[in-house]
Amino acid sequence: MAGHCTSVGPAATYAGAMAAETAETFDPATETAAGVGVLAARARTASLTLVGLSRGDKDAALHAMADALEAATDTIVAANAKDVERGRADGMADGLVDRLTLDAERVAACATALRDIAALPDPVGEVVRGSTLANGLQIRQVRVPMGVVGIIYEARPNVTVDAAGLGLKSGNAVILRGGSAAEETNRALVAVMRGALEKQGLPADAIGLLEGGREAVRDLLTARGLVDLIIPRGGAGLIQTVVTESTVPVIETGVGNVHVYIDAAADLDTALAITVNAKTHRPSVCNAAESLLVHESVAAEFLPRVLTALADSGVRLHTDPAAGSAADAAGIPHDDATDEDWDTEYLALEMAVGVVPDLDAALAHIREHSSGHTEAIVTQDRAAARRFTTEVDAAAVMVNASTRFTDGGEFGFGAEIGISTQKLHARGPMALPELTTTKWIVEGDGQVR
Amino acid sequence: MAGHCTSVGPAATYAGAMAAETAETFDPATETAAGVGVLAARARTASLTLVGLSRGDKDAALHAMADALEAATDTIVAANAKDVERGRADGMADGLVDRLTLDAERVAACATALRDIAALPDPVGEVVRGSTLANGLQIRQVRVPMGVVGIIYEARPNVTVDAAGLGLKSGNAVILRGGSAAEETNRALVAVMRGALEKQGLPADAIGLLEGGREAVRDLLTARGLVDLIIPRGGAGLIQTVVTESTVPVIETGVGNVHVYIDAAADLDTALAITVNAKTHRPSVCNAAESLLVHESVAAEFLPRVLTALADSGVRLHTDPAAGSAADAAGIPHDDATDEDWDTEYLALEMAVGVVPDLDAALAHIREHSSGHTEAIVTQDRAAARRFTTEVDAAAVMVNASTRFTDGGEFGFGAEIGISTQKLHARGPMALPELTTTKWIVEGDGQVR
Repeated sequence: MAGHCTSVGPAATYAGAMAAETAETFDPATETAAGVGVLAARARTASLTLVGLSRGDKDAALHAMADALEAATDTIVAANAKDVERGRADGMADGLVDRLTLDAERVAACATALRDIAALPDPVGEVVRGSTLANGLQIRQVRVPMGVVGIIYEARPNVTVDAAGLGLKSGNAVILRGGSAAEETNRALVAVMRGALEKQGLPADAIGLLEGGREAVRDLLTARGLVDLIIPRGGAGLIQTVVTESTVPVIETGVGNVHVYIDAAADLDTALAITVNAKTHRPSVCNAAESLLVHESVAAEFLPRVLTALADSGVRLHTDPAAGSAADAAGIPHDDATDEDWDTEYLALEMAVGVVPDLDAALAHIREHSSGHTEAIVTQDRAAARRFTTEVDAAAVMVNASTRFTDGGEFGFGAEIGISTQKLHARGPMALPELTTTKWIVEGDGQVR
Repeated sequence: MAGHCTSVGPAATYAGAMAAETAETFDPATETAAGVGVLAARARTASLTLVGLSRGDKDAALHAMADALEAATDTIVAANAKDVERGRADGMADGLVDRLTLDAERVAACATALRDIAALPDPVGEVVRGSTLANGLQIRQVRVPMGVVGIIYEARPNVTVDAAGLGLKSGNAVILRGGSAAEETNRALVAVMRGALEKQGLPADAIGLLEGGREAVRDLLTARGLVDLIIPRGGAGLIQTVVTESTVPVIETGVGNVHVYIDAAADLDTALAITVNAKTHRPSVCNAAESLLVHESVAAEFLPRVLTALADSGVRLHTDPAAGSAADAAGIPHDDATDEDWDTEYLALEMAVGVVPDLDAALAHIREHSSGHTEAIVTQDRAAARRFTTEVDAAAVMVNASTRFTDGGEFGFGAEIGISTQKLHARGPMALPELTTTKWIVEGDGQVR
């Protein structure tokens, strides 16, 4: 996943370096303590410049931002250390502290992410469709920036850099609202990136940082007309809050309660490989499988194999009675699946396992419990595959492939903002084009009706 | 605009006919008095059938619905007469009564609209993009129905038919909520169309009618998870209510405060023709022009001509001081434009007229007052046209063409749901594809990560 600087990139080679002077001239008190109204007005003004920028200008700015981040590594790491110290003092969990922490290598990874974004095609200006009408009017639908995009996320400093870079490349001014636990870090990162923009002759207000308490977030969510789009990036709680409270349009990135269904006509070696991969390859992400449904006609043969393999991989199993019997027979530890299990996105080495009498039952189960992210069938039966792909209502439907492939990087998009589980505007992996809207340009020589 | 049965279609040749028996078996008390929860659950079940229908099945159903409407003309007209009578008794304005009224010719026009929808391509199943990944996975992004779509509109019976037809063609189950002033009419229309679906072996619940007071509407607007999309069709007040109160995703169709800017390098004959056409061709619609901005270097020559032509067409003029002086010199009556005038969508033979010193001022004025629908420049200057099309933030930007061309029919879409002035999902004229979402189908032979 290029564009996500937490993902594995080239090892950081640049570390120390002096604090960038740009960071020193930045006064958070005056630049980021502004309310949403002021930030949005500044962002709107900046967006008037961004809308007309060439790809060359934007890519040069992205490289300048990357260079400035690396040059300011010491300042950034020092600011981050304050956040980390406060987090530890407040009893922040180790996992969250790890996500919050920046060292020289991670700063370099953030810079790399910006350079990766620079290497991607510019979505702005792409002609989506067009024609010449009978009356000679030439019409074309062209991708243009959204304008001002608000991004609300948790205490993950890499998202600050990522969102700023994706915003700039797509011609949007961004208002960033990161978790308050990363306050010092975000100030430092934004100061450096704003300084780099100014040095490039671009408006610093293309990147705004919203501070303040919950009230500031509420102001952002209701800044209809000032902000064109809000993207929440984070856990289910954050997303739910944004979706229900926002009057500004929201792109929802979502939860993955992902199923793998092993059909009567499945190749069982394939089924085993896909199930284990979908569950264990990276259990903490949204495209990891959470439930396994097995057709009863292959259950006797398949369940002992798959339950053993899963258990050997350290997966805790939550079984329905039929799967539980198979587990008992094979001497594999398991819990009885509760109603709640079928709706749980474990994001961990746990899996609910059940036996279904037929494809209809599998489809009904998935309809009831799916979060609309990714669903998979393993089958050699074309009719079953066709029904599954037609009837399952999800962003991605897999036939004989691991659910782990629902990913902007895997799909070849280069960058990924998130995976949309909603149906409006974008569904599935979202990349730069999803940060744009379109405009119809109609050119004539005096046509009237 | 095919798909809008109020628009001009073939003259109705079929009038009388007996009430269709299907209408008589429909009991509104049990079928439409259901709450949103029940209606949505039924619609969801119906949508499971709709998602897999072939185009042939859907087109046959649309023709059956059209035939049934014509066969039930007397029943429909009689039901409508009750609504019209109640409307008149309640003091409904003549224009609204006219929009509410159905006669045999208008029923036939509704039937024609359904047949026109049948003639359009099926958006469902269209492959938007796709590729084969390096690992052999075949991925394709395919258009699929949204699922359950709520449509909220005013007392215009033709929208009931139109929305049902567009919903069916796009594979969606619809929940219709028309203005209560058309209650009897909508019951009759929905009963006939549901009956026709059943006769075709399709689920009647593909078309649901939501009755009840404001509370029912509020329930619909907050039926997140039950309803996939809500489309308001109507005036600014209705749309504003839906947009601010809905937690279900909304596609906003909007207000048009449309400007025509006459540049320094305009051909003035072209400018005259476009201005008069944009203002007077059909002043009541959203793509009609409301404000005229004239570059000062051509004002002395152009204003007398255009103000005379507009006044001759019955347009009431609201002028800034410079345009006012020109009107006075030509002896043309006019009012001084108030601040409010520049933000008013007159939807009538009125126009605000002002003089601007340059293109920058025109762009700034439009930025401040545009509703983001359609904006036009008249110019022979390529650089001015390029700046205007790049910098103006609107669904459609015209160069040397009347603003009246922003229309699904004119663009060749065949049907039009409305014109979106929002930026998410759809912008500009919306047709059948905009009633769909997409799904990624990924086919492999056992690929894992």
